[in-house]
Amino acid sequence: MAYMLLNGELIERSEGKIDIEDRGFQFGDGVYEVISVYGGHPFALNEHLDRLFESARKIYMNIPYSKTELEDGIKRLLQKEKKNNCYVYMQFSRGTSIRNHIIPKTATGTLIIYLLDAKQIDEWKQKGIKTVITEDIRWLRCDIKTTSLLGNVLVKQKAVEKNASEAILHRDGVVTEGSSTNVWIVKDRLIRTHPADHFILNGITRREILSICENHQFRCMEQRFTVDELLEADEIFITSTTLEVMPVVEVDGQKISGGKPGPITRKLQSLFEQEIQFRCFDVKEKFSVK
Amino acid sequence: MAYMLLNGELIERSEGKIDIEDRGFQFGDGVYEVISVYGGHPFALNEHLDRLFESARKIYMNIPYSKTELEDGIKRLLQKEKKNNCYVYMQFSRGTSIRNHIIPKTATGTLIIYLLDAKQIDEWKQKGIKTVITEDIRWLRCDIKTTSLLGNVLVKQKAVEKNASEAILHRDGVVTEGSSTNVWIVKDRLIRTHPADHFILNGITRREILSICENHQFRCMEQRFTVDELLEADEIFITSTTLEVMPVVEVDGQKISGGKPGPITRKLQSLFEQEIQFRCFDVKEKFSVK
Repeated sequence: MAYMLLNGELIERSEGKIDIEDRGFQFGDGVYEVISVYGGHPFALNEHLDRLFESARKIYMNIPYSKTELEDGIKRLLQKEKKNNCYVYMQFSRGTSIRNHIIPKTATGTLIIYLLDAKQIDEWKQKGIKTVITEDIRWLRCDIKTTSLLGNVLVKQKAVEKNASEAILHRDGVVTEGSSTNVWIVKDRLIRTHPADHFILNGITRREILSICENHQFRCMEQRFTVDELLEADEIFITSTTLEVMPVVEVDGQKISGGKPGPITRKLQSLFEQEIQFRCFDVKEKFSVK
Repeated sequence: MAYMLLNGELIERSEGKIDIEDRGFQFGDGVYEVISVYGGHPFALNEHLDRLFESARKIYMNIPYSKTELEDGIKRLLQKEKKNNCYVYMQFSRGTSIRNHIIPKTATGTLIIYLLDAKQIDEWKQKGIKTVITEDIRWLRCDIKTTSLLGNVLVKQKAVEKNASEAILHRDGVVTEGSSTNVWIVKDRLIRTHPADHFILNGITRREILSICENHQFRCMEQRFTVDELLEADEIFITSTTLEVMPVVEVDGQKISGGKPGPITRKLQSLFEQEIQFRCFDVKEKFSVK
């Protein structure tokens, strides 16, 4: 994209530079959000902004902007770039300070907002994706959406090495989540996903699916499950902002639900798409570039 | 400091900026070293550079510089700044690429080297420091010296909140290390520290102390110990590049060795200082700005 916002100022993307002592660069000391834009309308923007502030609060970080200011920034960028379908990337780091582990009292923070091209996921959504299982080596505060992401990068690489699209993580045999997604299984029509504790990020799409399940009377539980239960599931799917509801048709080379997306996954995909249609095209609760 | 090296080029420090899509900024996807300079001479430079390449290798990262090139960069900077006592900070990140968890094949990396003022630690070394105990929430690859440091920042903050200087970490009751130091106990003249596995960083000062213990026939073991054993120790000390051999005289408000540095800690401090004297002032095995 051609433009970005740096600390509230609209600049050319190529001018987007930060100091080498920004704590985001030296300590991974930052929080972020990725938001999907459909038809010029950011989906679940309010929930994403709430989570950004919540992540910041958990690491004793003060974001010196209001939600309205952040919304206005996104709106300005979408209008400038004339983009209808893309992702908003928003990161707030603790800002520049002489290098020291101790959280500085004076740093004012660095806010970047820019747009990323949306992935083409239609074919994946139709056919489903391959995954691998690997150990969850990440820290014990995965509920915080931080930029200290090297653990996530390394486990994602385990998938890439095996020609798969996502790594499903486990701690001592209990499935937590994917490297950048939440993981769900269906067995005998019961849908399960890991509870929202310190071991997983409480995904915005995850919350939407829980809500859809409740509204449409699917049997669904936030309950831990093992790698063995994963491999014996009737259906598996993963959810995330960029992958929406994505069927998993293979785990470590083993076919799941006959190698094709299962019926409950299909139904949830469809209900989630209806939600997007309703909130981004029909109602347009917040704003749209159109 | 006034100058720095950015990708091998000597520039003014104030010009030291990196792109917002540098993976060091968005993923904490980098490795680093801090090296102490005494009398213009970097202590254990070779060991630090070896560890930098080792950390990079562990995260599938190629550093496109030779050790000699890195050494030459440090030498150039020390001569330019005319600094005799300081720290060298050296960081290599995976460089700039369109945001994606997957490790890019094309990014060429970002290398920064600059000097930091040395901490004044003489009084601390005489009196010893206060510490707190807190849970080790970090990831399971603490053997890699990476810039995904938010876990370390958050546990260090537990110490700051209690007016202490360092946090001593434990996993399920077993002491691992400090937030940026290795931890040692002495009981009945036996010295113990956690083995160099995935739960701790194998500190350069840690290795020096192990070597000193061997050469001077101290009884010393790389063996795990519990929080209870820590609290019952005759002496506790921590080691790091910037704190050298630092006596711990208080843990969670409880006095250790009567609130004064113990005799074995004192002896190791002295032997480590002799090592610095020998290698940085007497022999000057590599180079010196003098």
